[in-house]
Amino acid sequence: MALATTETPAAVDFGPASALSCRECGTRYDLGPSFACLECFGPLEIAYEFGRVTREQIAAGPTSVWRYRDLLPVPADVAAKPNLAPGWTKLVKADNLARELGLRSLHIKDDSGNPTHSFKDRVVAIALEAARNFGFHTLSCSSTGNLAGAVTAAAARAGLSACVFIPADLEEAKIVMASVYGGKLVGIEGTYDDVNRFCSELIGDPLGDKWGFVNVNLRPYYAEGSKTLAYEIAEQLGWRLPEQIVIPVASGSQLTKIDKGFRELVKLGLVEDTPVKIFGAQAAGCSPVSTAFKAGHDVVQPVKPNTIAKSLAIGNPADGPYVLDIARRTGGAIEDVDDTEVVDAIRLLARTEGIFGETAGGVTVGVLRKLVAQGALDPDAETVVLNTGDGLKTLDAVAAHARPAAVIRPSLEAFRTAVADA
Amino acid sequence: MALATTETPAAVDFGPASALSCRECGTRYDLGPSFACLECFGPLEIAYEFGRVTREQIAAGPTSVWRYRDLLPVPADVAAKPNLAPGWTKLVKADNLARELGLRSLHIKDDSGNPTHSFKDRVVAIALEAARNFGFHTLSCSSTGNLAGAVTAAAARAGLSACVFIPADLEEAKIVMASVYGGKLVGIEGTYDDVNRFCSELIGDPLGDKWGFVNVNLRPYYAEGSKTLAYEIAEQLGWRLPEQIVIPVASGSQLTKIDKGFRELVKLGLVEDTPVKIFGAQAAGCSPVSTAFKAGHDVVQPVKPNTIAKSLAIGNPADGPYVLDIARRTGGAIEDVDDTEVVDAIRLLARTEGIFGETAGGVTVGVLRKLVAQGALDPDAETVVLNTGDGLKTLDAVAAHARPAAVIRPSLEAFRTAVADA
Ligand SMILES: Cc1ncc(COP(=O)(O)O)c(C=O)c1O
Ligand SMILES: Cc1ncc(COP(=O)(O)O)c(C=O)c1O
Ligand SMILES: [Zn+2]
Ligand SMILES: [Zn+2]
Repeated sequence: MALATTETPAAVDFGPASALSCRECGTRYDLGPSFACLECFGPLEIAYEFGRVTREQIAAGPTSVWRYRDLLPVPADVAAKPNLAPGWTKLVKADNLARELGLRSLHIKDDSGNPTHSFKDRVVAIALEAARNFGFHTLSCSSTGNLAGAVTAAAARAGLSACVFIPADLEEAKIVMASVYGGKLVGIEGTYDDVNRFCSELIGDPLGDKWGFVNVNLRPYYAEGSKTLAYEIAEQLGWRLPEQIVIPVASGSQLTKIDKGFRELVKLGLVEDTPVKIFGAQAAGCSPVSTAFKAGHDVVQPVKPNTIAKSLAIGNPADGPYVLDIARRTGGAIEDVDDTEVVDAIRLLARTEGIFGETAGGVTVGVLRKLVAQGALDPDAETVVLNTGDGLKTLDAVAAHARPAAVIRPSLEAFRTAVADA
Repeated sequence: MALATTETPAAVDFGPASALSCRECGTRYDLGPSFACLECFGPLEIAYEFGRVTREQIAAGPTSVWRYRDLLPVPADVAAKPNLAPGWTKLVKADNLARELGLRSLHIKDDSGNPTHSFKDRVVAIALEAARNFGFHTLSCSSTGNLAGAVTAAAARAGLSACVFIPADLEEAKIVMASVYGGKLVGIEGTYDDVNRFCSELIGDPLGDKWGFVNVNLRPYYAEGSKTLAYEIAEQLGWRLPEQIVIPVASGSQLTKIDKGFRELVKLGLVEDTPVKIFGAQAAGCSPVSTAFKAGHDVVQPVKPNTIAKSLAIGNPADGPYVLDIARRTGGAIEDVDDTEVVDAIRLLARTEGIFGETAGGVTVGVLRKLVAQGALDPDAETVVLNTGDGLKTLDAVAAHARPAAVIRPSLEAFRTAVADA
């Protein structure tokens, strides 16, 4: 069911999570499969009653998101259940890229190391526990590609069914990946926003009634998974917050929850309360939030996407207004780069750090470069940039630039002529 | 230079490694960029003088292969140098797959989580340190695809040049990946064995004189990287050896060094000396070692490969005889599966555990299944199977089976007709 309920759900275990709470009006609800406030239609978030959490306790946990289980809406024994155990990806000190961009200190949080090679494994892992709690037998989602693969993979391992929805024109790698795990993949003729609208209808219909749509009726749980990016970055920096961070923006959920994660760490006394400027990154061909930011608007005007950064192609971003708030409150900004800049940035990241990001990584690195050039980003402040996806899923973006130097017969003569002397 | 030298190399730091030693006649040489014995042309291996190494010391190290730096030919400060820090990939308890195959206890060592998504990042990381020690400015290799990407990525991050060689007919993903990091990729018209022969010529030529070919003149160092698979499996099992393990075989280096790694752990007192049966897995279309095993031969007859498992398509495997030895000594076997079984196994692994392996993973899981069916593998013994590569690099293998269930307009009506009622 779509809206919040006042019925008490069956026995569930969400660990430290205590309620759903409306982000707009603060009304509280029991923890259920609901995402919108009955009073004001505002989005629901997870509220917690945290126990004492120490750095030592976290460090003694598994090398996955489950080291932060005491800060997530999951049962204490979550690591023992079949799931993909994502997270604890590398925070790479990027001295080569920093040098090229003129930055003093730069780290890349590289989420291509996740099980299905995008940050979506994090959010799905939390949504999966919610689905189990609510007794859903089918996992579903509307997806720009990465989420579909993360959901079908997690469902396979957990022994649930999956039926996921994507725009039909996605990259081949994302289509194959979202089908290979045995769930049902359905292509929709239309944009992601059409797919998303369709899924909202499906939830209201008996067809989709007992389904857990990770980013619709399980969205409050799902979204919390992105907090783990904030936790990991802080822990990997030695329990400090970065001074500046560049985050990709599609629906805006990830950026919003990374901010929430940083603030929770401060509240829990796990890090010092130092300022973090939060920057959002979009592709110019789908930049409704960046456009609103630059125009000084509080609301986001939907657009029809047209960019190679298909994973970020959400024209009507649910969390757009919160992203604007956060960028303004922290002294950050939202910026966008065009497709040529995206491709250049993918290649720059690969060439300098040996990291092959997908188009979403091209967007963040491209925006990072642009912000430095504009002077919007302080080159002396400690900066983190996210690579949230994998270049193997968006080969076409760089294929024209990533060809063999030559194809030759196996002879020194041929090599000398074609390559060494060229 | 190709053969061993008796000159003392310049000041180098290989940590606990003390010499090169001939695997055939035992002659010892200084640590240099050499790979074949001057006396008998046997392959050279690294010899060590290990200090005291404890479980606690290892556990306190980084979550990468560098936690085992005291067991590898690398300097103590290796983790501080720019490299991709591969390893410490997941050992996944595979209860679903075990159930389907009728095994009591099965784990998958999933090396698709490495930086360039194959186990090759491990071997390259060690070879890179050797290249730095010897002052090589260019990293090179002959590759069936994965190694080329691992070398060019590592070179990019380390600030070295790269020039790598592959058969020209590899998968698109491997070609793009091996080019995107900015090194030079050269396609060779021929098989891997032609590429390899060409590289041996190139080493003897002034053109390639100052190059570190990771799997030729740096092969003794490179090969040691595969030991980390053995170390991690043992540590992740709680400092125990598995009873049975299934390993893919191309040149045979990986299998040989996993055996060496297990035996070192025993010698160092880090694990109990319990028997491990080692099984090798090949594709039927390139199965020279499996053929020799079944025929009871000690030597391996070269073949011309013809299989979709291109990463394993080495027709003339350098370490073939050692693989035969090890399988026989430990009570294991070498088996092969045809391309249809490879595809089925990729899909089985994906469907049961949410792991999308490349064709090499299809080979190991397919062989695992076959060995169980034959009764060659004890279903009650604790078993580990390796997935050494990533399905995103070999999409074509499964693309025909991994399609959308339907492509529809965004309407409940269309969904009902095409999918729900189908
Ligand atoms: C690779 C990648 N990065 C970033 C995002 C942005 O996520 P959000 O919708 O939370 O803004 C997505 C969303 O699909 C994605 O696939
Ligand atoms: C994915 C993968 N697995 C396994 C192997 C086998 O390695 P080896 O040559 O050490 O037998 C290779 C070799 O290229 C590979 O690419
Ligand atoms: Zn409300
Ligand atoms: Zn010898």
